[in-house]
Amino acid sequence: SKRYNVTILPGDGIGPEIMRVARSALEAAGARADVAFAFEEGLVGGSAIDAHGTPLPEETLEMCKASDAVLLAAIGGYKWDNLPSAERPEQGLLGLRAGLGVFANLRPANVLPQLIEASTLRRDVVEGTDIMVVRELTGGIYFGKPKGFGVNDAGERIGFNTMVYSEPEVDRIAKVAFEIARKRKGRLCSVEKANVLEVSQLWKERVIETHKQFSDVELSHMYVDNAAMQLIRNPTQFDTIVTGNIFGDILSDAASMLTGSIGMLPSAAIGLEGPGLYEPVHGSAPDIAGQDKANPLAQVLSAAMMMRYQFGEEGIASALEKAVNDVLDDGYRTGDIMQEGKTLVGCVKMGELLLAKL
Amino acid sequence: SKRYNVTILPGDGIGPEIMRVARSALEAAGARADVAFAFEEGLVGGSAIDAHGTPLPEETLEMCKASDAVLLAAIGGYKWDNLPSAERPEQGLLGLRAGLGVFANLRPANVLPQLIEASTLRRDVVEGTDIMVVRELTGGIYFGKPKGFGVNDAGERIGFNTMVYSEPEVDRIAKVAFEIARKRKGRLCSVEKANVLEVSQLWKERVIETHKQFSDVELSHMYVDNAAMQLIRNPTQFDTIVTGNIFGDILSDAASMLTGSIGMLPSAAIGLEGPGLYEPVHGSAPDIAGQDKANPLAQVLSAAMMMRYQFGEEGIASALEKAVNDVLDDGYRTGDIMQEGKTLVGCVKMGELLLAKL
Ligand SMILES: CC(C)[C@H](C(=O)O)[C@@H](O)C(=O)O
Ligand SMILES: CC(C)[C@H](C(=O)O)[C@@H](O)C(=O)O
Repeated sequence: SKRYNVTILPGDGIGPEIMRVARSALEAAGARADVAFAFEEGLVGGSAIDAHGTPLPEETLEMCKASDAVLLAAIGGYKWDNLPSAERPEQGLLGLRAGLGVFANLRPANVLPQLIEASTLRRDVVEGTDIMVVRELTGGIYFGKPKGFGVNDAGERIGFNTMVYSEPEVDRIAKVAFEIARKRKGRLCSVEKANVLEVSQLWKERVIETHKQFSDVELSHMYVDNAAMQLIRNPTQFDTIVTGNIFGDILSDAASMLTGSIGMLPSAAIGLEGPGLYEPVHGSAPDIAGQDKANPLAQVLSAAMMMRYQFGEEGIASALEKAVNDVLDDGYRTGDIMQEGKTLVGCVKMGELLLAKL
Repeated sequence: SKRYNVTILPGDGIGPEIMRVARSALEAAGARADVAFAFEEGLVGGSAIDAHGTPLPEETLEMCKASDAVLLAAIGGYKWDNLPSAERPEQGLLGLRAGLGVFANLRPANVLPQLIEASTLRRDVVEGTDIMVVRELTGGIYFGKPKGFGVNDAGERIGFNTMVYSEPEVDRIAKVAFEIARKRKGRLCSVEKANVLEVSQLWKERVIETHKQFSDVELSHMYVDNAAMQLIRNPTQFDTIVTGNIFGDILSDAASMLTGSIGMLPSAAIGLEGPGLYEPVHGSAPDIAGQDKANPLAQVLSAAMMMRYQFGEEGIASALEKAVNDVLDDGYRTGDIMQEGKTLVGCVKMGELLLAKL
């Protein structure tokens, strides 16, 4: 029997509630496949600021690095909103990404047939949308140097950041994206702004170069402004998208919102080896924290991504995804995805319904 | 009687066809208000590359600078698609913006009731959308230095650009945006990524500072990823948006696409003084160039923006806008906006219909 060491980071807000559900779902699905989990819990984000004065305590990062995978819920909340940027909960997330070297962020955006009415797009436009955005996560303008504040030649105060990519950084994310596209519908669209930015020209060149190893995948190129339009105009034209850190931040969120059920979407952040970071796309929802109103399904689907991408446990991943699908089919909904004629349940109850399916 | 000197830049593709319509519409509307135009025509983009080997000949820029306003159609085409970035038609546009110092790009995105069916968003979501995106146009990562290619400490080839704003750059675009918001619904949303980028922190600080002179305007702040989502989730929540160059590039295009009639949208690029640059949002559509299929209405609406923002000729601006509205009400459509039960017309015919209204 196999045993995986998973660091769980419940974080802030609704994090602890939804993490409890994901944990029991993992244990139940694992048990049926003779897989056991050793969970260790760490502090990150606002709760780490409160306990240790820093959003990413050294011991949390060490715990994560020593484990097989990291399952994160969500961080942030009103309480920490007025801290200076450098001390805020988000820094914990950026530190985790950098510390774990998880350079590839996989952001699926697929329309769930049961929830298609929640999309703000017309049904005929959005039906069948199934996009995977592969966002570079540890480079680009998020981490580029030099950055900071200074004074220009005219003596004026300036703020600046550097958008920079090296050839190996582009090569490795392109490789991940081509591999994913190959397992999907075989189409990869690389998004940049090569008509204006040198960093994008290098990006485009290297993606074209990497394509030589993946000639079975169809490669296209799109400017980021056009990609934002095309996602709205005709989302089903896309299969896999690969793009840099900030463009990916914007486009993956836009793609998520198209589906109408952002509360249902998981994500993964992976490196070439070592533990990946798995987390729902939604935030910590401090307004409903502790009220048993949270939707735990994206957290469960993030656990499914962990089983698939980290451990190759396709059986457990599918079992978790099927359980989520089944409770939706049975008509159960948390408040965020509630529809007329459906049955409203809380977070705990949703967890019990899932367990019954597993 | 007044006389305005207008440089017209027909550019490439459908540019010359739609410019002819805008020019006669301006002359007709002007005549009724005792306003005359002296038009001078310049080359820019692909046609300038063909004639002079550069997308922005010195004489074109000089002509623009010496005139009261610049009306541009569209540039680019397949023919120049394989040139290196630095020599492409787009560089003509970037050079014009920098050369004229038009730092404020006004990008209205409003749903036309006659064309709302063309939106990919649900009618109940998109109805009433009327957004003005104010995009900073001569700074940020588009023009920031250092930029280029190099080698990092690890000896790897890199490409890099600098996203930089100075305090006066933010102050002046914020001022323009507050003034516009004040004349609209009085709400301004500043979009940045201050939770990650120092350049955005400076941006946010200065917008807050400038707000002190406009305390009657309601100011809010939003991260760029969230803004991309909110535009899709609930576009009517926005009135005026102010943001930097690349974020504005992405968000203004997304906002345009929401309306479903990007072929109908004008834009203006203005500085504190001197000639502004007025152009439709759509491109040069090389696939239909010279076939009398182009939609000239966004070009006419761009001329209307010129009359309003450059010359304060609200009467002429409104007359042009009303003419466009009236031909739509009469059921005339070019191919790009054709709908069941409407009357299909070409570019020339659409021009004649407009003239009849003026
Ligand atoms: C919280 C923030 C720093 C983060 C990002 O911009 O990467 C978030 O928006 C995300 O996409 O995970
Ligand atoms: C053509 C390109 C350089 C330009 C830009 O990015 O500014 C265009 O996308 C625009 O928005 O006018």
